[in-house]
Amino acid sequence: MATTPTTIACDVKNFELADLGKKRIEWANQSMKVLQIIRKEFIKNQPLKGIRVSACLHVTAETANLMIALRDGGADVALCRDYNIPTFAIKGEDNDSYYSHIMAAVDHRPQITMDDGADLVGILHTKRKTELAGVIGGTEETTTGVIRLRAMAKEGVLQYPIIAVNDADTKHLFDNRYGTGQSTIDGIIRATNFLLAGAKFVVAGYGWCGRGLASRARGAGAEVIVTEIDPTKALEAVMDGFRVMSMEEASKLGDVFCTVTGNKNVLARQHFELMKDGAIISNSGHFNVEIDIPSLEKLSSSKRTTRTFVDEYTMKDGRRINLLGEGRLINLASAEGHPASVMDMSFADQALCCEYMVKNHASLEKKVYTVPADLDKRVAKLKLESMGIKIDRLTPEQEEYLASWNEGT
Amino acid sequence: MATTPTTIACDVKNFELADLGKKRIEWANQSMKVLQIIRKEFIKNQPLKGIRVSACLHVTAETANLMIALRDGGADVALCRDYNIPTFAIKGEDNDSYYSHIMAAVDHRPQITMDDGADLVGILHTKRKTELAGVIGGTEETTTGVIRLRAMAKEGVLQYPIIAVNDADTKHLFDNRYGTGQSTIDGIIRATNFLLAGAKFVVAGYGWCGRGLASRARGAGAEVIVTEIDPTKALEAVMDGFRVMSMEEASKLGDVFCTVTGNKNVLARQHFELMKDGAIISNSGHFNVEIDIPSLEKLSSSKRTTRTFVDEYTMKDGRRINLLGEGRLINLASAEGHPASVMDMSFADQALCCEYMVKNHASLEKKVYTVPADLDKRVAKLKLESMGIKIDRLTPEQEEYLASWNEGT
Amino acid sequence: MATTPTTIACDVKNFELADLGKKRIEWANQSMKVLQIIRKEFIKNQPLKGIRVSACLHVTAETANLMIALRDGGADVALCRDYNIPTFAIKGEDNDSYYSHIMAAVDHRPQITMDDGADLVGILHTKRKTELAGVIGGTEETTTGVIRLRAMAKEGVLQYPIIAVNDADTKHLFDNRYGTGQSTIDGIIRATNFLLAGAKFVVAGYGWCGRGLASRARGAGAEVIVTEIDPTKALEAVMDGFRVMSMEEASKLGDVFCTVTGNKNVLARQHFELMKDGAIISNSGHFNVEIDIPSLEKLSSSKRTTRTFVDEYTMKDGRRINLLGEGRLINLASAEGHPASVMDMSFADQALCCEYMVKNHASLEKKVYTVPADLDKRVAKLKLESMGIKIDRLTPEQEEYLASWNEGT
Amino acid sequence: MATTPTTIACDVKNFELADLGKKRIEWANQSMKVLQIIRKEFIKNQPLKGIRVSACLHVTAETANLMIALRDGGADVALCRDYNIPTFAIKGEDNDSYYSHIMAAVDHRPQITMDDGADLVGILHTKRKTELAGVIGGTEETTTGVIRLRAMAKEGVLQYPIIAVNDADTKHLFDNRYGTGQSTIDGIIRATNFLLAGAKFVVAGYGWCGRGLASRARGAGAEVIVTEIDPTKALEAVMDGFRVMSMEEASKLGDVFCTVTGNKNVLARQHFELMKDGAIISNSGHFNVEIDIPSLEKLSSSKRTTRTFVDEYTMKDGRRINLLGEGRLINLASAEGHPASVMDMSFADQALCCEYMVKNHASLEKKVYTVPADLDKRVAKLKLESMGIKIDRLTPEQEEYLASWNEGT
Repeated sequence: MATTPTTIACDVKNFELADLGKKRIEWANQSMKVLQIIRKEFIKNQPLKGIRVSACLHVTAETANLMIALRDGGADVALCRDYNIPTFAIKGEDNDSYYSHIMAAVDHRPQITMDDGADLVGILHTKRKTELAGVIGGTEETTTGVIRLRAMAKEGVLQYPIIAVNDADTKHLFDNRYGTGQSTIDGIIRATNFLLAGAKFVVAGYGWCGRGLASRARGAGAEVIVTEIDPTKALEAVMDGFRVMSMEEASKLGDVFCTVTGNKNVLARQHFELMKDGAIISNSGHFNVEIDIPSLEKLSSSKRTTRTFVDEYTMKDGRRINLLGEGRLINLASAEGHPASVMDMSFADQALCCEYMVKNHASLEKKVYTVPADLDKRVAKLKLESMGIKIDRLTPEQEEYLASWNEGT
Repeated sequence: MATTPTTIACDVKNFELADLGKKRIEWANQSMKVLQIIRKEFIKNQPLKGIRVSACLHVTAETANLMIALRDGGADVALCRDYNIPTFAIKGEDNDSYYSHIMAAVDHRPQITMDDGADLVGILHTKRKTELAGVIGGTEETTTGVIRLRAMAKEGVLQYPIIAVNDADTKHLFDNRYGTGQSTIDGIIRATNFLLAGAKFVVAGYGWCGRGLASRARGAGAEVIVTEIDPTKALEAVMDGFRVMSMEEASKLGDVFCTVTGNKNVLARQHFELMKDGAIISNSGHFNVEIDIPSLEKLSSSKRTTRTFVDEYTMKDGRRINLLGEGRLINLASAEGHPASVMDMSFADQALCCEYMVKNHASLEKKVYTVPADLDKRVAKLKLESMGIKIDRLTPEQEEYLASWNEGT
Repeated sequence: MATTPTTIACDVKNFELADLGKKRIEWANQSMKVLQIIRKEFIKNQPLKGIRVSACLHVTAETANLMIALRDGGADVALCRDYNIPTFAIKGEDNDSYYSHIMAAVDHRPQITMDDGADLVGILHTKRKTELAGVIGGTEETTTGVIRLRAMAKEGVLQYPIIAVNDADTKHLFDNRYGTGQSTIDGIIRATNFLLAGAKFVVAGYGWCGRGLASRARGAGAEVIVTEIDPTKALEAVMDGFRVMSMEEASKLGDVFCTVTGNKNVLARQHFELMKDGAIISNSGHFNVEIDIPSLEKLSSSKRTTRTFVDEYTMKDGRRINLLGEGRLINLASAEGHPASVMDMSFADQALCCEYMVKNHASLEKKVYTVPADLDKRVAKLKLESMGIKIDRLTPEQEEYLASWNEGT
Repeated sequence: MATTPTTIACDVKNFELADLGKKRIEWANQSMKVLQIIRKEFIKNQPLKGIRVSACLHVTAETANLMIALRDGGADVALCRDYNIPTFAIKGEDNDSYYSHIMAAVDHRPQITMDDGADLVGILHTKRKTELAGVIGGTEETTTGVIRLRAMAKEGVLQYPIIAVNDADTKHLFDNRYGTGQSTIDGIIRATNFLLAGAKFVVAGYGWCGRGLASRARGAGAEVIVTEIDPTKALEAVMDGFRVMSMEEASKLGDVFCTVTGNKNVLARQHFELMKDGAIISNSGHFNVEIDIPSLEKLSSSKRTTRTFVDEYTMKDGRRINLLGEGRLINLASAEGHPASVMDMSFADQALCCEYMVKNHASLEKKVYTVPADLDKRVAKLKLESMGIKIDRLTPEQEEYLASWNEGT
């Protein structure tokens, strides 16, 4: 075991960005007040004393602050960046490089794993099973990862307990709506400098991300059109005052499109054929599959980059369709992802779950756990406190009244 | 069994209102298009042929339309009005009268019960156990009733299966937000003609009702302040752009207060002491317990009615506090409750659950069931169709993609 | 001259309403804090000492408070109600009765006239010219009246100076947007109990009233469609995120229509022919001319009243169109008009203009004056103070900086 | 005179940006549809045939499109960039360079001047009077310039007619609200990636810019606080649902501040002393004088740049205040200024005013003219058409009705 706890910085290609990186970390830290409080407690109580943590998360300024908090809590931390997401460190990291980074994380012989898509868990359960023995537990940040892990648990394959941080109210209720909402609009405007006031903005999907995005697009003056496949959500969108229609209808009307469904080919051939000249299409859901780019390529006679994140496809009939950020998550491609204040809560959940796992792993089974409710509520409380906001408490009389109801008397 | 299915109208005190009643029923019907569709199917298929249904629901124009649909589906329906809620028929119905009405409903020897607070179920399980044998199932409209029924089921006392209509998405996601939202603002304005633009409007509770109300109050130009006891909900209110604080702080600022918490004494002595001269207080949660009226009485030196639904309490220090509708649900006291378009969905759920119970009761246990998901979705679909709105369907490719995710592959 | 100043000589038909009237006056007074402050000053300074004022205004609780303030300022006040508007006093006042009331106001031998449509001025300049000699000045509340008076002044006919209270910023910027906005929605909901969330709400006209109404309809969850004849205003509506189209297109889509244009036949035959079954049409502009009711009558095969303020016209093709409040101003027909807090500013302008006229009439010409800017600003300041709101003042340095700009140096 | 009309590109320092420039011009052009229509007309009709135009405007992609349209209308155009504004061409242009550029524009011997701050006019009326004889007229884009020109006209100094393009409804009603609104939020988020949802956002000034900004900040989920010095505007902000208070009070609460007043030292020493640790301050009004930076320097013990457009000042008491973009217009400093769709209207006004001046200069006096109303309306009409939006026209009957009112009959 390492005698000196360290944050392993994976190799950084571009050293000129290092100073920018440090300042960005400090800048983000100013908005991560819950994590600051937890870090202070960690410094005092050393709950992670000597624990080896391997984290496979996006390398961002916010992640750096999480790593610092874990380190200050006594952990011996290794951070490996993950795939597919541009970071300010090594852009253009290829598959081999990614693989070698995960391997480095495994070589760290983690007691706790911190995953963002279950890749680290995956390697540990396949190519590096020998390292499994030392692992006491882990956390998982994403829906995608949780789905994989639950499947593993169901099949009886999962070898250690994992907490699904994504399911915490203080994570998914906030990052999807407020984080994705703001950063997606930000990404689209940075990419295009397009005026949203008066524009027809089509939001595909009215889940949490879609709600956040629709709300922010309306707040920017756009006339928002929502498409859905679920009738209940569609009806909620209607009652929230949005226009709701099929994507086929919306395709004829939209100035800007953004998909946030989690499904594939939400914008497809039949839609491209109907779009207006100059339509702008983008994605802020999962992966880069929501827009059927191969079909777009086939329909077009030429393609060129008109702005840094804008690829203009000219259809054979002369119409132009502008694809943003190659169909990848536009809030990461051309903007900076979730603001630090949102990541503050997700990472506070991560830090507290890490502490919880160290304390409770002995009594946990090899399955996927939700974030303990009191831990989740504590993050919300700390966030409110950090904003200087006081809320009410139930009086004993009110507690009793509620209890009597719950008991049905 | 009655040879001619009838809707038993309980005795109507005020015959002059009868014609008004009929027109109101027709007026409401225009906005109840899902129920219209179901009624047409019922006429054709007679799914309730010869079934005796006793309903203990608020007597409103919307309820009348539900009764008509059930009757046209072949049912032999008895409707008894319930207590505590002003209707356009017999206001001031007293306890004895209420009791005799429930008894009339029991005398109808129901095969299906339709309850709004589990009163009919209660009598059947206590004073009129002999009638239980003929009952095949029931439905329950309210949270309150569901809590009682679940307690009964838990104790093994419940003698027939009941569907908790309140839990349908097409009910609780819509009537609380959009129904309560609009009708509460309506009730407050009808009672006061107070200008909301620029007023400080305090919403106690940020559940579904509170969200709807806060959204509508903001939409009317008010500066909205939210109070909560749950930190996660409080944080959502903050992120939604509302001011959040303790009721103690809010008491000093508010021009209008409305409680929607489901708890008691949410506005209490310590708050009345801090309120501004002229403050308006109201409730749109459950019962009339959210405002501690006895304390208000004690603090005041005099009381008078200044408008039909406004009681002005003059405090000993000279400040005046205006209590609306005696602290009862203001959207029922001074307005007309949920608009028909909202009740359309709740009552479509009721009608379909009634049909479902007739078909499936043999295979159901003596417990509380949630509304079947496909039935719930069907109501949403019909509502969208009645509005002329088309939504997307998953392509086979998308179905497969989603399925692969759910399977974790 | 009367030795005892009095308020109101007009006969009140329905004595049972008198107590309701008194309490309503007090209720309104609670929201008329600027007028309260002015009244206190008037009591102290007696600026209207012995001045005979004849007012021809709508008789409402708010007007009563204005009359009280004038009386307490020393004036000898006669109030005559005007035509066309339902009041809580004599509904169904006929032409003769109206005429006799104006004559009573003239018989009062006013020194100051206070008009709402220039009727009193009209009689004084035609049938009762002998009384003109004693008049020192007047005020006019409405756009309509101001247009007539300006025409009179242009022709050299006007015999005394009049202040156009309608042009004060503290009047027209507020009553049109916030007063009409809220009270129109209120009127429509009281008349129909129709759910606005998810409804298509068509606003004809995007002037101040239209902006207020569109904003409130959106705030109630409606999808708002705006129609306009002015391209600049239409473009503002677009940029504000509303759908804009011709009334012909909107006619096919709307669930609820409301005209606020100031023009005639805005909803006409060609629109009725396109409307959906169940469409609700209403007016909150000027007069009852915005909806072409004669055409509606001709197109329909039958008509009946389904709710108090709803007339259902059945077209020959079976479609039903619901006309609210007989096409008159719906915020007066089924609701209570502008809330007191809005009238507070208009009537504070009236009271201060009355005082101004007494002080300055000698130096004024026989024409129409705008409200003095400092008087207008003073009303805004008092309103803010009454709400406990403090705003900034320019520092001397800032004053100088601005002045240098205005001078172009 | 040049035989071949040309757009004189002033010397471009950074040739690598040239291609980026060309694509940006094309990108902007896609949103400048009114200008495209005008350009087509210009190509056909050659209204500026052989006219020398010297333009002293910000060099942006949008300006380039204006120059192209003028050139295609037959003009011989010289464009000189102006001072103080970062462009994608020569950043860091110094005073001498700026002066030499203006001189080049004068050397072009313009017949029409197109100014953005009256600098070109200034030189022509002082150091280069000999060139005045050939000038037939000009246009001015800014409020600032118009004030200077009106002062010159008043003193009888102005030697040729100038149209104040800024006063067109299609300019100032749109660029201030929708352009400044969006681009300011964009600038602040690009500079900070700060989460606006739940943040307290202080807007100083509730003019057109302030309204746009307040609306967009609320739309992004912020709790918006407005400060004002004018009581009427302050009251409008209140009625629009915003909190209004003095800047002294707001200073204690704000997370983000933005000044849009047109005055100096709106954020000054007394405010910095009260701000919270981490407060973010910015300006989107005129110049860089709205924030008293010298006082901020004096109060601070250290200063460092934490992100590209963020200067962190650490106060002597340890609090940090983050100044964005050195107090310059943040929508230009860290974002891209008004979106092309907004500039489309302003520059359509410019192009049409230029044409108007060529046609009508002979009959114009040496003073400042407003944009002809029909020209202004035409731009609005074309914009609507370019968006595919049809609006209503008055019927002859309606025309007559309105006319009768205006005539007071």
